[in-house]
Parts: sequence; C-alpha cells; structure tokens
Amino acid sequence: MTGAVVKRSQKAGLPPGSLVYVGDKTAGRTTIDVIDYTWERIDEVQVTDAGNLGAYRDSDTVTWINVTGLHEVGVVEKVGEIFGLHPLVLEDILNTEQRPKMEDYDDAIYVIMKMIGYFENEKVADEQISLVLGDRYVISFQERPGDVFDPVRERIRSPKWRARRLGADYLAYALIDAIVDGYFLVIETFGEKIEAVDDQIIAETDPGTIRSIRELRRELIYLRKSVWPMREVISGLERCDSTLITHQTRLYLRDVYDHTVQVIDTLETYRDMAAGMLDIYLSSTSNRMNEVMKVLTIIATIFIPLSFIAGVFGMNFTYMPGLKLSYGYYASLLLMTAVALVMLVYFRQKRWM
Amino acid sequence: MTGAVVKRSQKAGLPPGSLVYVGDKTAGRTTIDVIDYTWERIDEVQVTDAGNLGAYRDSDTVTWINVTGLHEVGVVEKVGEIFGLHPLVLEDILNTEQRPKMEDYDDAIYVIMKMIGYFENEKVADEQISLVLGDRYVISFQERPGDVFDPVRERIRSPKWRARRLGADYLAYALIDAIVDGYFLVIETFGEKIEAVDDQIIAETDPGTIRSIRELRRELIYLRKSVWPMREVISGLERCDSTLITHQTRLYLRDVYDHTVQVIDTLETYRDMAAGMLDIYLSSTSNRMNEVMKVLTIIATIFIPLSFIAGVFGMNFTYMPGLKLSYGYYASLLLMTAVALVMLVYFRQKRWM
Amino acid sequence: MTGAVVKRSQKAGLPPGSLVYVGDKTAGRTTIDVIDYTWERIDEVQVTDAGNLGAYRDSDTVTWINVTGLHEVGVVEKVGEIFGLHPLVLEDILNTEQRPKMEDYDDAIYVIMKMIGYFENEKVADEQISLVLGDRYVISFQERPGDVFDPVRERIRSPKWRARRLGADYLAYALIDAIVDGYFLVIETFGEKIEAVDDQIIAETDPGTIRSIRELRRELIYLRKSVWPMREVISGLERCDSTLITHQTRLYLRDVYDHTVQVIDTLETYRDMAAGMLDIYLSSTSNRMNEVMKVLTIIATIFIPLSFIAGVFGMNFTYMPGLKLSYGYYASLLLMTAVALVMLVYFRQKRWM
Amino acid sequence: MTGAVVKRSQKAGLPPGSLVYVGDKTAGRTTIDVIDYTWERIDEVQVTDAGNLGAYRDSDTVTWINVTGLHEVGVVEKVGEIFGLHPLVLEDILNTEQRPKMEDYDDAIYVIMKMIGYFENEKVADEQISLVLGDRYVISFQERPGDVFDPVRERIRSPKWRARRLGADYLAYALIDAIVDGYFLVIETFGEKIEAVDDQIIAETDPGTIRSIRELRRELIYLRKSVWPMREVISGLERCDSTLITHQTRLYLRDVYDHTVQVIDTLETYRDMAAGMLDIYLSSTSNRMNEVMKVLTIIATIFIPLSFIAGVFGMNFTYMPGLKLSYGYYASLLLMTAVALVMLVYFRQKRWM
Amino acid sequence: MTGAVVKRSQKAGLPPGSLVYVGDKTAGRTTIDVIDYTWERIDEVQVTDAGNLGAYRDSDTVTWINVTGLHEVGVVEKVGEIFGLHPLVLEDILNTEQRPKMEDYDDAIYVIMKMIGYFENEKVADEQISLVLGDRYVISFQERPGDVFDPVRERIRSPKWRARRLGADYLAYALIDAIVDGYFLVIETFGEKIEAVDDQIIAETDPGTIRSIRELRRELIYLRKSVWPMREVISGLERCDSTLITHQTRLYLRDVYDHTVQVIDTLETYRDMAAGMLDIYLSSTSNRMNEVMKVLTIIATIFIPLSFIAGVFGMNFTYMPGLKLSYGYYASLLLMTAVALVMLVYFRQKRWM
Repeated sequence: MTGAVVKRSQKAGLPPGSLVYVGDKTAGRTTIDVIDYTWERIDEVQVTDAGNLGAYRDSDTVTWINVTGLHEVGVVEKVGEIFGLHPLVLEDILNTEQRPKMEDYDDAIYVIMKMIGYFENEKVADEQISLVLGDRYVISFQERPGDVFDPVRERIRSPKWRARRLGADYLAYALIDAIVDGYFLVIETFGEKIEAVDDQIIAETDPGTIRSIRELRRELIYLRKSVWPMREVISGLERCDSTLITHQTRLYLRDVYDHTVQVIDTLETYRDMAAGMLDIYLSSTSNRMNEVMKVLTIIATIFIPLSFIAGVFGMNFTYMPGLKLSYGYYASLLLMTAVALVMLVYFRQKRWM
Repeated sequence: MTGAVVKRSQKAGLPPGSLVYVGDKTAGRTTIDVIDYTWERIDEVQVTDAGNLGAYRDSDTVTWINVTGLHEVGVVEKVGEIFGLHPLVLEDILNTEQRPKMEDYDDAIYVIMKMIGYFENEKVADEQISLVLGDRYVISFQERPGDVFDPVRERIRSPKWRARRLGADYLAYALIDAIVDGYFLVIETFGEKIEAVDDQIIAETDPGTIRSIRELRRELIYLRKSVWPMREVISGLERCDSTLITHQTRLYLRDVYDHTVQVIDTLETYRDMAAGMLDIYLSSTSNRMNEVMKVLTIIATIFIPLSFIAGVFGMNFTYMPGLKLSYGYYASLLLMTAVALVMLVYFRQKRWM
Repeated sequence: MTGAVVKRSQKAGLPPGSLVYVGDKTAGRTTIDVIDYTWERIDEVQVTDAGNLGAYRDSDTVTWINVTGLHEVGVVEKVGEIFGLHPLVLEDILNTEQRPKMEDYDDAIYVIMKMIGYFENEKVADEQISLVLGDRYVISFQERPGDVFDPVRERIRSPKWRARRLGADYLAYALIDAIVDGYFLVIETFGEKIEAVDDQIIAETDPGTIRSIRELRRELIYLRKSVWPMREVISGLERCDSTLITHQTRLYLRDVYDHTVQVIDTLETYRDMAAGMLDIYLSSTSNRMNEVMKVLTIIATIFIPLSFIAGVFGMNFTYMPGLKLSYGYYASLLLMTAVALVMLVYFRQKRWM
Repeated sequence: MTGAVVKRSQKAGLPPGSLVYVGDKTAGRTTIDVIDYTWERIDEVQVTDAGNLGAYRDSDTVTWINVTGLHEVGVVEKVGEIFGLHPLVLEDILNTEQRPKMEDYDDAIYVIMKMIGYFENEKVADEQISLVLGDRYVISFQERPGDVFDPVRERIRSPKWRARRLGADYLAYALIDAIVDGYFLVIETFGEKIEAVDDQIIAETDPGTIRSIRELRRELIYLRKSVWPMREVISGLERCDSTLITHQTRLYLRDVYDHTVQVIDTLETYRDMAAGMLDIYLSSTSNRMNEVMKVLTIIATIFIPLSFIAGVFGMNFTYMPGLKLSYGYYASLLLMTAVALVMLVYFRQKRWM
Repeated sequence: MTGAVVKRSQKAGLPPGSLVYVGDKTAGRTTIDVIDYTWERIDEVQVTDAGNLGAYRDSDTVTWINVTGLHEVGVVEKVGEIFGLHPLVLEDILNTEQRPKMEDYDDAIYVIMKMIGYFENEKVADEQISLVLGDRYVISFQERPGDVFDPVRERIRSPKWRARRLGADYLAYALIDAIVDGYFLVIETFGEKIEAVDDQIIAETDPGTIRSIRELRRELIYLRKSVWPMREVISGLERCDSTLITHQTRLYLRDVYDHTVQVIDTLETYRDMAAGMLDIYLSSTSNRMNEVMKVLTIIATIFIPLSFIAGVFGMNFTYMPGLKLSYGYYASLLLMTAVALVMLVYFRQKRWM
C-alpha cells in the first residue's frame, strides 16, 4: 500500500511528461496482443514491433490492443506516438500508483482502473489497468500477464455475439464490466473472512484475533481506496458529452455503475461491521477477566482471614488461653467455618457468585 | 447479508443482460396471478402460460400481474418479451441482491424494493420486490410466496373502493405503500428488542449481553441497507417527469416519502442508542469490577499484615522476649487490632469504604 | 420514544387517508375553542358542535380555532370537511408520530410541530401540534389540554396589542414563536442537569452516574429529533411563495428561525459535552482503580516476603542453625526490616508512592 | 456557557420585539462615546442624553457611536428610535446570547459578533458586540466597559491615518478586524495550555490531568461556538450587495475572512489534538497499571508457594519424616530456592521480566 | 505548529497592510536571485539592490525573481512597490503562518504554498513559499535558503528544454509541481515510520509505542493542514479566468492537481491506519494483562487453600486429633494434593489453562 509512495518519489524532480515506470520490474518482455474484428471476421495477432500498429488506427474494424508489461518504456512511448496520445496520458499509464480516474481528450477517452484480486499468500493485491478509447480502437495497458478479460475474449471470438456489430465503446464497456465483476469475487472472499473473524471474537480469547482484525481493517482501507473512485469514473463516462460513446453503451455503463455502487455498499457494510469488532472483542475479554477476578477475590477473601486465625493459634506464647482446652481445636475450626460462611453469604448478597 | 455477494459472483464473466437468478432455488413452481379490473368489474385469474398475458397488455383495464418465484427464468423472460422490457431490467429482476432503485424507461418505470420482515428464527430477512409500471398495467416480481400485499388485494376486490377509478400508477403506489407500512412492523419489533437490551445493560453483567448488542448492530446495518435507498427511490418516482404518474398519485407518493423518512429517522435514533450501548455496558462492568477489587484490597491489606504478626510470634527462636509474658498473647492481639484499625481509618479516609 | 412506532403499526395495511388516531386515548372530550377578533372587538367561544364552524370560515375576522383532543376522530373529520382540508392532511394530524414538516396546499399552509416540556416524573415529553393557516383563519390541533399558548391568548385579548390589525399569518407566527420559546425552557432545565452530571463525574465514582449519563444521552437524542426538523420547517415557511404570508410576517419568521438555530446550536454543544462524559468518567474510575491497585500491591509485596521469612523460622526442623542463638530473633527482625526497606526504596524509585 | 440559555428563558412568552436585556446587570451607567471625524478634524464627545445623537445622523462626517452597557434599556431604545433601527434588531442587541450573524436591512447593515478573551480566573469569556453600519455612521453596542478597540481609536486620532478619508464601512471593517485580531491572542494562550497538558499526559499519572483535559475540551466547544459563525458573517458582509460597503473595503473584508479561517483552522487542529488526548492518557495509565500488576504477580507467585512449603514444615505432626534429619533444614531451603528459580525462568520466558 | 499563533499575535492591533515579518529571524541577509531567459539566452544574476529590478518588469523576457529571507522587510516592500503588489499581498507574504491560498488580482496571480520536508532532528517542518505570477515574470518568496527548486533551475539552464519557449505561467507551474513532488518524499518517509510503529504495536508492549503513536498523529495533523488546502489552490489556478494562464499550462496544472489528490488520498489512508493503532495497542496490552492475571489467579487460588491447611495443622492446640497419628502427615499431604487437583480441574473446565 505504502510501497506505492516510495516508488513514486523516484519521479520527484523530473519534468512533467517524463516517462518513468514506477512499478515492479517483471522479467518477461512487453507483449502486444491485437484483436481486430468486424461482424463478419476476427483476427488475433501478437505484434512484436509496436511500429506496425499504425494500420489498425486507420482501419474501419474495431481493434483491441492489449499491452502487457510496462517496464519497456520505449514500447509504450511508440504506441503513444502512433495513436497520438498526450504525454501526460503516457506518464499516467506508467505511473501505476494513480488514483482511478477518467479524462476526456476530445479524440480519445482515457480511463485508469484498479483490477483487484486475492493472489498468492492470501493477500489482496491490485494492478493498474489503463484504457484508451479512441475512434474504433481500445488500447489497454496492464502491468503483468494474467487478467480478468478472458470472458470478454471468449465472447468476441463467438460468431454469435451480437455486440460484434457494436463499436469500440461497447468493447471498452465490456472490459470495465469485467473488472467490476472481479470486485465481486474479491468481496465474496473478504466477506467470508470477516464472518469467520466475527464468529471467533465471541467464541474465545485468542490473541491472534487482534491480528486478524487489524488485517481486515487494512484490507478494507486498501479495497476502499481502489473501488471508491470507480463510482466517479464510471459516472463520468456515462455523463461525458464525447461522441465516442453511443447512447446504447451509456445504458450499459449505467448498469456497471449500479454494480459499482453495490460493491461500495457492501464494503461500507463490512466497514461498519469491522468498526465494531474490536469493541466487541475488548468487551468479551473484559468480561472474562472480570470472571477470573471474581474467583480470585472469592478464594482469597475467604482463605486469607482463615489463614490468619490459624496463624494466631500457631503463635508460640507460653500463656495462651484455649490452647489447652480439649475442645479448643474444634472451636477454632468452628470459628473458621463461621467466618467462611459469613463471607459466602456476603458474596451471594453482592451477587458475585 | 454477505451471502448475497457470494451468490452474485456466479454471474461474474457473463455478458450483460444474461438472465441468471442468483437467489435461493425454491421448490414450488413459478406462479402468475393476474388481477384485472375497471370500476365496474374485477377478474382474478391464475395464468399458467406466460404467453397468454399479451391480451392484458393491450386492454383498457388496469392489470396487476404478480409473478411469484424467479427460478424459472424462462417464465420471467417470456413476460419481459411480451411487455417489451429491456434486457437489463430483466437481469436486475433476477439479480435479487440489487440495491433499491428506480429507473425511468420512457414506456415503463421500473422500481426495485426490499420487503423486510421478522421471519422464522427471529431473524430479520428481506425479499426483493420488483415493480414494472407501464401504461395501464403493473407487473410485480417476488421471490417466494407470501407478501404484504393482501390488504391491497382486499381493497381492489371491494366494490366501494374509489381508487378502482384511478389508474395503474395508483396501484403501484398502493403496493409501495404496503411495503413501507411493513417497515413499521419490523422497526416496532426491533424497537422492543433494543429497549430490552438497553434495560439489561445496566441491570446485570450477563456475558450474553455483548452477543445481543452485536446482534442488534448487525440487524441495524442490515435494515439501514434496505431502507435508506428507498428515500431516493420514492423521491425519484415523485419527481420524475414520466406521464405514467398523475399529479394526484404524486401527492400520495409524497405521503409514502414522509413515511420512509419517519422510518429512517427512527432507525437513526436506534443507531444512536446502539452506538452508546457497548460503552455503557463496559462502564457498568468496569464499575462492578472496581467494587470487587476494592473488597479484595481491603480484606487482603488488613489481614496480610496481621498474618505476618502472627507468623512472627509463631517463629521457633529459643530466645524470644515476650513469649513467656503472661499478657504477651493479649498484647499481640491488641497490636493486631491496632494495625487493623489504622488500616480501616486509612481506607475510610481514602473513601474506599 | 419507541412507543410511537409501536402505535404507528396499527395503521399498516389501511388505505392512505384512513383517519386513525395513533396517540393515547385521553379521558376528556374533544373541545373546540374559538377566538375571533378584529382590531375593534374579540369573541371567545367554546364550540360544541364542529358543524357550527362554517360561519368563521367565511367571515372577515381573524379566527383561531383550537382543537384539543384528537381521539374523537369524527370531530377532526368534520373540521376538515368544513375547511376543505386534504384527507392526507387530516391523516397526518391524527398520526401524532409525524416528523415536524410544513406543506403548502395553495389555499392553506399546513405545519406540524412538536411542543416539548418537562412534565411529571421529570422526563421530557412532547406533544404534536398541527397548524393549518388559511385565509383569515388558523386551526391548531393538540392532543391534550394544556399548552404554551397562554401568553398569545393574553396578547390577543389585550386591546392595545397592535398585531390585532395584522392577519392570520401573524397569529400563526405567534403560535410557532410560543412553541420555540418553550424549547428554551426545556434546554435550560436540560442544561442544569448536564452541568450537574458533569460535576459529579469527576467528584466521585457513583455507579448511578452511568445511569445519569445514559439518561442524558437518550433525552438528547429525543430533543434533537423534535427540534432539528424545525429549522427546515420555519425556513420553508419563510421562503414559500404562498400569498398567505405577508412580507412583514416573514421578517418575524426569520427571527424565530434564528431562535431555532440558537436552540439547535446549544443542543449540539450539549451533545459534544455528553459525548465526552463517559470517557471522562471511565478515566476517573480507571484512575481510582489504579490507586487502589497500587496500595494493594505495595502492602502485599512488602508483607508476602516478610511472612515467608517468619514462616521459615516457624518450621519445626530439629536442627536449624540460629534458632538457638540469643540474638537470632532480633537478627530475623532485622532481616525483615531490611527486606521491607529495599522494597520501599524500589517503589519510591518506580514512583508508585 | 449554559448560563445563556437560563437567562434567555426569561423572555419566553413575551411578544417579538420586546426589549429585555438578558445579560448580567452591571453597576455602572450606560455611557455613549462619540467619535466624529473627517479628514481635517476629529471630535470626541461623551454624550449623556441619547436624544442629542440626532445631529450626528444627518451630518456629513463619519460618526462612531459606542454604547457601553445594555442594562439601561431605555437608552438603547432611544438610540434605535433616532437611527430608525428595526425593533427586531434592538431585541437582538439586548439578547446577548445571540449567535454571531449579519443582516442587511437596506438602510443599515447589522452585525453581531463575540469578543473573546481570557479574563479574571483564567477562564475564557465572551462579550457580545453589535455593530450597526449605516450611511456615514457606525453604532457599536457592548455589554461592559473595556474592549479591544483602543488601537482603532488611536489610529482614528492620528492625523496621518489615511483611512480617515474613507467612509464608515472602513471603520466598521477596522472594528471587526480588531475583534478577529483578539481571537489570535486567545488561541495563543489556549495553544500554550494545550501543549502543557499534552506534555503532562505522557510524563506522569496525575489525576488532575483528566480535569485539565475536560477543561480544554469545554473551552474548545466554547471557542468554536463563538468563532465558527464569524466565517459566515464576514463572508456575508463581503458578498452582500449593499451600497453601504465599497469595493475597496470588501478587499479588506476578504483579508479578515482569511484571518478568521486561519483561527478556525487552528481551532480544528487543537480539536484533533484534544480528541486524542484522553486515549493517550488512558493508554499511559493502563501501561503503568500493567507494570504494577506484573510486579505484584511476580512477587506473589514466587512467595506464595514458598510460604506454603514453609507452612508444611511448620505443621505439628508428631511423625514427620525429614524434620529430624540434620540436613533437613538446608534441604527445605534448597527446595524453596529451586521452586523460586523455576518461577523466575518461567517469567523470563513469558517476557514478564 | 502552535508557534505560529504565538507569533501571529504580535500583529494584533496593527492596521491592515502593516508589514511585519512573523517568522524566525535568520542571521543571513535577504538575497535576490534573478533568472531571466528567452529561447535563445539565459541570464543569472544576484541582485543586491531591489531597486534594480524595474528593468525586468518591462522586458520581453521571462524573469524569475527568487527572494530568500523575509526579515529585511524593506527589501520585500521595495519589490512590492516596483511590481505594484497590493499592500495586503505583501502583508500575507510576510505573515508566514498563512493557510495555502490563491488570489487573482487582475494583473497578477498570488499563490501561498507550504514546502514541507523532514529536516534536522527527524521532525517534519514547513516553510511558506509565496509566488506572484505576473505578465512575463514570477516572483517567489521563501523564508530560508535551501529549497526544492533545483531541478527546475537545472531544466531552465538546459538549452534543450522546450519549455523555455513557454511563458511565465509554465514557470510558475514548474515551481508548484516541484513543491508537490516534495510532498511525495515526505509521505514516503512518513509511510515508513507508520509501518514501523504498526509492526511494533503487536510485537511487544513497549511504553514508548504510545509516544510514537502520539508523534505520528501530530505529524499527520500537521501534514494535513499543509497539504489539504493545496487541492483548492491548484484547482483555483486551473479554473480561474485570468489571461495570465494559457490553456496548455492549465492541462499541466490538472496533472499537479491529480498528484495533490494522490498525496491527500495517501494521507487519509495513513489517518485511517493511525486511528485504529491505539485501539489495537490497547487490545494487545489488555490481552497480555489478562494472561498475567490468569497466572496470578491460578497460583494464588491453588496455594492459598493449601497454605491454610498447613496453617491449621501448625496450630498449637494441645488436643488435636490426627497430629499423633503415624500417617497423619501423609494424610495431610494427600488432602492438599486433592484440593490442588480439584482446583486444576475447575480451571481446565473454565478454560483458563
């Protein structure tokens, strides 16, 4: 979470528009996958030289260019050059610690989103996805191989998919929808975790519970940071007056907007639940402590006076009345029993037992 | 509460407009109940084939089509086809984890609401009700048999009911009103529960109280999630510029709006009460603990020094002055009494007793 | 507070406009007091048959009709019929759990307010007052005999009161002003209570304090619920474009508005104070507990080792060096004193004493 | 703070515009100080009869009339009559528990402010200052002698002061500026107090700290109540479309506005600091308590078993093996040492030591 | 933080526009560094007499005048005179406790910002930077030597820097950008600190942790105060209708705006994290305390009854049955073991062990 900022500071002092990739360097090469389709046909190509993309820009077909891996800055720059992207847009694409946002540059609409998921070691992680929606093309940039777009690819390949008649704006919508659908998977897993911790809180005083609550809270902060701005982003797309987005696609964007609100709503519900957890946990702990204290108090306050009485009769004075009496011992035991009973009655009355 | 999300994720990856029912599968069949009325007459029919509904669409009568059970997706699809519902509307009807909302599609107004109630096992539960208000017809979709609409049915059947002269918009209003009226029943029960817990908090330190407070908080989160958006929904209906809603019905909608605000207000009052409960409980517990600790301290601090004195006179040194004295025993008891008295005076002064 | 909801649920299922009184049934009859005045003269009549009110509706005089007791629904209905009140207005008048609000029905303005006061058993209570301001008449509805309007009555009766020249809108203003003035009396009493509890918190650990804080909080929630919406109500009156309210009266309404804001401001100040009270109380309690614990620890940790030493010398071993020594006893006492001193020095150093 | 409300309630029931002074009665007489100036000359007069003020109203000079002491209501009424002040304005001037506000009555602008300061007994106190800005005159009303206006008086007297060419609006600005400047002195003192308490919190567990924190919080509530509304007041002055305020003076009002925001900002910073103080204090206390408890536990758990062993060997059974052994005593001491060592190792392992 | 207010109060009572420097007096002299450039050439001069700056005002080149050190008020005044700055602007420049803001005086735009950094002793500190953007010139005022502008200087000196063609508005943007870039460095360091404390909280109960949390909270309050208003400032620049800022520069300002929002977002994330820290710490501490208490209770409750038994058999009664029995001693030990076992079973059952 905070790693982002650390990396971001490498850019401090550079002029605006400087193309510096601030994410992790991954080993693999940057790849460019192109899907080019019309109602009649579909072409899938992996382009090795970004310079060859020019043809797609001018064709009448709908083209989806998916760039995976941002560490080869030159490739991104080349793509930007061919499609005439503003230097600040390119800078934002590479600065992978951006807040989700949408910007409308007359000839293209630019969208930054966070794809989130539970990856290895059960931690939630995010990856920045940038979309550029232009006239009859969509360019998507992602940091690492692997994404949530496979169902979209499947649908494009299906010859029966009516949306192949629709334009690039519908494609962009489908990609955004896939990302938002991914949120549901994450909050489902998160919901199971929060339920598990919530049950654990009342059941027993495991010190690990605090650790779990802290973990939940931090993940929640993290998820909120990724998802909240999406609301604004999608409502911005829906309402922007660009001619790149048709009326029909706006209807679908409204639908994604509702989904995003649903995710945010659920996150807020979880937040409310998590907020109260530590209090409940502390109350439970305090309750158990109370019970422990009571037992200590009862045992101690009963036996301390008795021990004192025994101690008195254990003193070695030569002249102690009663020690010689034949019933002295029994009398002392009787005294002790009486003291103990008085104590017990007192505790009952105080409702400690 | 979170189950919703789990189920929702089954849809991830499907194209928009995919008709998938995400709720529980119920055993029974989907039934379609039609009430068709004018001022003069009323027909009640249970339609078995959704294809027969077309006649009602075009008639001059007011028609209420109530579809119960959403698991037979084909039936819902058929209804949608006949009445020309948008695929996204059908998708929302089946996705029963929607947030309440209203949408105005020129030829129909679409409303999603939550019907809530205390069902079996004393837990609050909700059921999604979708209304489609068209020209001279209202279609309602519900997940399970059993609803809060019986008083509306009774009124429609009554030949004296003046509203039979009014249009489908008044019918839609009556259904919404019935749902909001149901909220009052739920918050009445909830109010009794919260009062009960609130009294219990001060009365005694029952560990079960924490459990109850947690339960109340969670129900509150749940109720708020269902009821809050209704405010927006109804005010949306009241203010939308659709010709489907007459001026007169808008006045009545204003009235339901006031009721919803009243419910929300009461929920907020409960929230404020619930928020302070755990603090009050903890304070009470802490107070009792304090009292217990004081008794322990007083008993222990009085008897520990006395026991020590007894211990000293119980040592086995051959030469111990005083042991042989005839009044030694009494002197030691006097010493102990003096020490105890000093302690007691000290505690009184400190106001611990 | 919650009683309201309980009663409200009796209405669930009834059609809108159903006239059902949801408040307490009071024994007395519904009474109708009419004050009818112009600059020159004043008539005060108690009307027994609501049907006779028609004359006042059409006269040129200013008429104040005060209806006390809402349980005789027929009387209220009759009044409504004569003055042409909308069924929803009548329903609201009888539903005494309304949120304060104002509504502008072209020919009349309808206002719901809460009159609050400390009544018997020192609890704050409210009573719903509904005003209908029409052309040259004001109708007020109250649940029980006894109100805060006596100063207004006195002023109307005074032949020197210039406002007798003014219209019904000024009369309505005067009634609203009387109600808001009543708020000052309540928050004055509340202020004294909160100050008393605030002083008590630091002074001593009385378990009753928690109860008082809880009481304060609940009253505050209650007061806020009654007073907050008044801000909106009065600003609505001031700004509505009805011709029933003259420019001059609007100036006076602005003044009442300022008073309401002042009351709300004071309530918010009390809320801030009450919010911190429990924390302060808990801190005080915790501090005292700390002190108690310290004394226990000091006494126990000093005497437990000493008792152990005495115990060792009280063992019955045949061969124990030192027991036979003539200075053995004194040496043991010296040892004990040394141990005690070391302990005391340690505690001083730790700043526990 | 709450005294205000108490006093305010005396007015309940009186008709609007009733002139009742709700503040403290001060012994001295009401005085009227007039400073009348043009660029060339300046007159300072103490007027004894309010009736003589009429001349200043009509003159071409700029006149500052400062009325000190509001308990002689007749004087205030007379001033109001001469300058044509609205009865509601006069009522507000006398009702010294007003919230700061500004009102624009075409021929005059009316401003209520709070002058705050640390007076005797180190408590913060406020005094209501009302300004009436008319055409070429400013009337200020204050409750008690003594104010923050002396620097303004000095400047007016200075023949080099260029602002003597400017109108009454600049004079009003200068007075408001003097009051806001006074806020800086108060928050400086408050800032020192809050820093002192903040240091004290960590240093030691003085029960007086809670009292100090409570005091800080209450002063903060008080200061906020006085200062917050000033923001609105000054921005209202700056933006009102009255011809009484020139463009140039508006620039200066913008400057005072910035100062007010700066004061509010600092107060909010203090609020954030104060909010966390009690938590930090409680944590510190709890930490110390923890340490105390550990020492008690270590001492008690080490010596309680040892005392038990000594007690066993102190029993008076005739046949006890080991008592007669020559090394029995040493063996028992060894046993005790072993037990103590095991305990110590256990505690080390648990990291309690 | 509060020092600001202390110093600010020195100005109270002075007329507006009084030039008083409220910051620390630094030893060095005020220096004026001028960078004057066009596309073709660049001049760097250190001006000793502020009077010589007039030439730059009228030239066609872009001029950056950087004034370091504000304690020589005369120099600042001279600069203001030459460039025709409003007295209130000069006053704000010298009053270094201003809140960040921007003001548009037709012929110049005036911006106040805070440059923040971790300076000596690891504390975060700020310095006020004032910018005046006029027609073809930028004047910057800073309190102390040393700033974050070196990268900008380097870029200006570079003959290949295309922005040398652009106007003074781009220069102003570059300076603002440099300051916002500096924020990233600070929150990176702060992020590391907060992570360190967050780990420490769960690991061990170090009393120093509270001190660290308090420190973090105060720094956060401080950072928020400096950074939050920047959002408004930059959005104000972007949206103001001054002709001094070209469309192109506005695009770049949008970029800085996004960076500021990113910083604020991260600060809010840290705030959320810091908010929960003390709770987590307290819970951990409370948990450990609980464990300590349990051990004490177990040891004490087991041995206190045993000691009592030993004490009974240590009493010196002449007639005590059992003492003479040969197996008496063993029987007593057996009794003790039995009691201890019962206790242990009880504790196990209560799940305290």
